[in-house]
Amino acid sequence: MRHPCRGYCLIVNNYEFDASTKMSARSGTASDLAVLRESFRRLQFQLVIVENVRCGQLLSLCSQLAAQDHSQADCFAAVLMSHGEPDQIYGTDGLLRVDEILARFRGDVCPGLAGKPKLFFLQACRGSKFDAGVEVPDSGAPSDEADAAAIEQQQRRLLPSEADFLVAWRNAVHGSWFVQSLCRSLDEWGYGGRLDLQRLLTRVCWRVANLYESNARDPLLCRKKQVPCIVSMLTKEVYFVP
Amino acid sequence: MRHPCRGYCLIVNNYEFDASTKMSARSGTASDLAVLRESFRRLQFQLVIVENVRCGQLLSLCSQLAAQDHSQADCFAAVLMSHGEPDQIYGTDGLLRVDEILARFRGDVCPGLAGKPKLFFLQACRGSKFDAGVEVPDSGAPSDEADAAAIEQQQRRLLPSEADFLVAWRNAVHGSWFVQSLCRSLDEWGYGGRLDLQRLLTRVCWRVANLYESNARDPLLCRKKQVPCIVSMLTKEVYFVP
Repeated sequence: MRHPCRGYCLIVNNYEFDASTKMSARSGTASDLAVLRESFRRLQFQLVIVENVRCGQLLSLCSQLAAQDHSQADCFAAVLMSHGEPDQIYGTDGLLRVDEILARFRGDVCPGLAGKPKLFFLQACRGSKFDAGVEVPDSGAPSDEADAAAIEQQQRRLLPSEADFLVAWRNAVHGSWFVQSLCRSLDEWGYGGRLDLQRLLTRVCWRVANLYESNARDPLLCRKKQVPCIVSMLTKEVYFVP
Repeated sequence: MRHPCRGYCLIVNNYEFDASTKMSARSGTASDLAVLRESFRRLQFQLVIVENVRCGQLLSLCSQLAAQDHSQADCFAAVLMSHGEPDQIYGTDGLLRVDEILARFRGDVCPGLAGKPKLFFLQACRGSKFDAGVEVPDSGAPSDEADAAAIEQQQRRLLPSEADFLVAWRNAVHGSWFVQSLCRSLDEWGYGGRLDLQRLLTRVCWRVANLYESNARDPLLCRKKQVPCIVSMLTKEVYFVP
């Protein structure tokens, strides 16, 4: 019999920043938060949601979460949404190295999660270079009919050519490409274990790379592309079985 | 009908370094090279093998390879074996940023490979921290009987707790853990499309994390663990169908 809780899911949504950081407020985050809450609740995670936390608060919260009893949990998940720099994420008061967060959940300091998947989803800009994409012939089959229809509406297909950064384009009205694609894929393929997490994330990459491009008045910011970057040290496939 | 060549596979084996780099010679690389050549030849790649190349030679070779006709190729692969630092790899004359190599094959500068998988396997130390591992109860089923037997020979199971770096432990006699596990997995599951590449690499991570630990006279270097790090921006599953 399955424990009713699959594990903790920490969701951090930082959207207002101290003036000293010179970071603008992130708009359009409410819809991201709403779909994340729904998707991870459906996957039976115990949610912990915080907004606008300082670096010290976030690290302290991570330490407290890591110290909980994870003996009955299958895994741990965290979704961190904020501004960022390569390998860093913004608290409301400044930058924090992502590996300082990850270190709180290492197997040697958090033995209850040793050998269990520790999943981190980062919605934060990892770089400032823009990717104009590259035109390719339409060779690949889209993954479903809705996606196919979305592609047909584009005059030509653009694929990202930058492979180093996750450039987190946020759509101020509809939320961010990555979070929205992630939640749609989790809803479609996650619960019930139809696909393991890495194959599911490959479909997220396909959606973000093929279905989205920026729409802005400034030509330097318009028609730009992104692709998520998936870093895995998993040693087993992860399925969300009911 | 399939084109006889799946694509180019560049194999770089740097094992002797200029005195100015203060890098020691890498021993035990011949068996790595042998299994790689066999595994990628079986996967129908067109091999290009170079050894002990300087940074400039390597970049120039990459540019030449990128300029080839890839229109009939399914993908591109490269295996880079050398000493390294985080995000950098050694030519015989010094350090080179890995993203300088990747940039040669970006979709916008190498249109023949746009939209096609570009696979890079790095056998190079990404950090100098040692991982003493963490003891876990034996909960997971090993992936096959040979692996199970290997585990039973261990007194206890150690799992890596460091998730940031690929620390490339090389066994001077039997070759490196990562390359040997990669080739064994490619041979078992790669050809014939039994598993897609990411699920295959998850099994490589399992093998390296569970079946290997260092054996050295120096206690600081003995019984240490590693886990490979898989960075994916793939938008489709990759299968090596015959």
